[in-house]
Amino acid sequence: MKSAAVLGAGSWGTALASVLTENGWETTLWARREEAVREIKESGTNKRYLPGFQLPKGLQATTSIQEALTGKQLVLFVVPSHTMREVAREAARFLPSEAIVAHAAKGFELDSLKRISEVLTEELPEIEDRLAVLSGPSHAEEVIRKCPTTVVAAARRRETAEAVQSALINSFFRVYTNPDLVGVEIGGSLKNIIALGAGLSDGLGFGDNAKAALITRGLTEIARLGMAMGAQALTFAGLAGVGDLVVTCTSKHSRNWRAGNLLSQGFQLEEVLDQMGMVVEGVKTTKAAFQLCRQYEVDMPITEQLHAVLFDQKPPRLAVEDLMTRGKTDEMEEMMTGTKPWV
Amino acid sequence: MKSAAVLGAGSWGTALASVLTENGWETTLWARREEAVREIKESGTNKRYLPGFQLPKGLQATTSIQEALTGKQLVLFVVPSHTMREVAREAARFLPSEAIVAHAAKGFELDSLKRISEVLTEELPEIEDRLAVLSGPSHAEEVIRKCPTTVVAAARRRETAEAVQSALINSFFRVYTNPDLVGVEIGGSLKNIIALGAGLSDGLGFGDNAKAALITRGLTEIARLGMAMGAQALTFAGLAGVGDLVVTCTSKHSRNWRAGNLLSQGFQLEEVLDQMGMVVEGVKTTKAAFQLCRQYEVDMPITEQLHAVLFDQKPPRLAVEDLMTRGKTDEMEEMMTGTKPWV
Repeated sequence: MKSAAVLGAGSWGTALASVLTENGWETTLWARREEAVREIKESGTNKRYLPGFQLPKGLQATTSIQEALTGKQLVLFVVPSHTMREVAREAARFLPSEAIVAHAAKGFELDSLKRISEVLTEELPEIEDRLAVLSGPSHAEEVIRKCPTTVVAAARRRETAEAVQSALINSFFRVYTNPDLVGVEIGGSLKNIIALGAGLSDGLGFGDNAKAALITRGLTEIARLGMAMGAQALTFAGLAGVGDLVVTCTSKHSRNWRAGNLLSQGFQLEEVLDQMGMVVEGVKTTKAAFQLCRQYEVDMPITEQLHAVLFDQKPPRLAVEDLMTRGKTDEMEEMMTGTKPWV
Repeated sequence: MKSAAVLGAGSWGTALASVLTENGWETTLWARREEAVREIKESGTNKRYLPGFQLPKGLQATTSIQEALTGKQLVLFVVPSHTMREVAREAARFLPSEAIVAHAAKGFELDSLKRISEVLTEELPEIEDRLAVLSGPSHAEEVIRKCPTTVVAAARRRETAEAVQSALINSFFRVYTNPDLVGVEIGGSLKNIIALGAGLSDGLGFGDNAKAALITRGLTEIARLGMAMGAQALTFAGLAGVGDLVVTCTSKHSRNWRAGNLLSQGFQLEEVLDQMGMVVEGVKTTKAAFQLCRQYEVDMPITEQLHAVLFDQKPPRLAVEDLMTRGKTDEMEEMMTGTKPWV
């Protein structure tokens, strides 16, 4: 029998564990909270993260990482990026030596600015060739409702990506492979900057043209940083780039959009964070990207302007004006290298 | 004094003529309808296409194409694609021999499936090096309201694209250049297929994941056809690709979205067109793309399924199912060529 562990019982971990169970995998969901495990076992629900949904029969749950991992052929790490290193350390002793591993976290490790796959392979060096990342436009609630969804599994080795693809693919959840692990990680991580900008743009009363500009030009600068970090340009035209960006920027339920929207009303960052009372991923990501673009000497005008709005009290309208009036540029030259030159 | 002619007084032609006027160009708008010209001259409005807006002072209008063109350094063709050849023939005798020419039409010539720049250079062969195309995410109403907007001017020669850029750029209308005229034309023309699909997906009750999948995978197949026709892949990650697609697919005011929505409710194509009482560009474009993908031997699964729904009465749910269950594929291999191979 094929068996899998999913570490992390948030909305996305629970949704992925449900897909695996539906696909005939004996699946164990690991959670730290006893109540979460008890609820899944007793009533087959996860009301905190997926209220109103019944999870598929057969899905197991445990608070023991040893029990979760023992004998598994596939292990998914679906915990927040800031807890990934700690969970990887806990998993180290019990991770089966042949298991295919994938993570579905977004963002960078704080301070070190390492990608999550770098964190994982530092803690678990033996998994390098068996490690994939899963990303793409995928609200967990829609996956639980079996709405058509597409995602991408990227890994250094084709066999690894294809193993993740085969485990998860079904008639409502379509998985593509991609050899560009670095690009897929970066696309998913940087999108929240642009979501913050989209909320700000909407809040300033700008229209669909401005939002499409933000998405497109935001994608360009994400791709530019990504390429400097070793990614391939075209990954950003795929599900982990355009796809995830579109979902994030057009959803008004996103925290990042709301934070941007409050900023546009003249609130300072501290007031916005106080008012929201929770973590706003895009704020941390803007800081990280701002450091990365200096480190890699890459021009990221949108990120730089957002950074000034967030951390230097620059008025949002002035930031937009500075973006719109920078020097005349060529789309292709700005986007990437290796294109056909002018005649 | 810099002077320009804009041929076509629909919403987009009027908006572009307004931008030129604001930028200090002496601009003449050519329209066939006498009432339109009289209204622009007398009250400075174009109520039929831009109700509620006052056009900038100084904007001229005429029904005489000779008067519009004489002595102009810049000429924009902003008429619908199906009338482009006829207007080019009328313009031929009066077009100044050094004028920079740009068009902003979307779609292909019916039956011949020629791109609009091909139509124009057939009728006006001497303009080939002076011809640009203008495209990107740009609702005319938002441009008139001076909401931030970005577009791309593409031409074979850099000087031509830069001339169009310099004429139109200002603090709310940002113009990028791009050397890929073919790609920019194709991106803007094929987006309406995906907008039709987006309306259909929403109508079937699918969510944001499905729409993001359509946009991303739609972009992939548009790029694939584009490359077969001589375009560069990365153009589709830019304003005429992603940008225009996002604006079109997330606007519920689009005719294409509405047509797709009606199709999802079980109406047949004829009933939908009857009910809407106007041209639905995406229907014609689906037919054109279906012919082009066979001619160029390119795989376009979304276009093929939409074609079957539109013209072969295939039930929409079955089309979605067939899309979701086609063979396992790799995102990069499907997207394009020239990427780094698997390790």
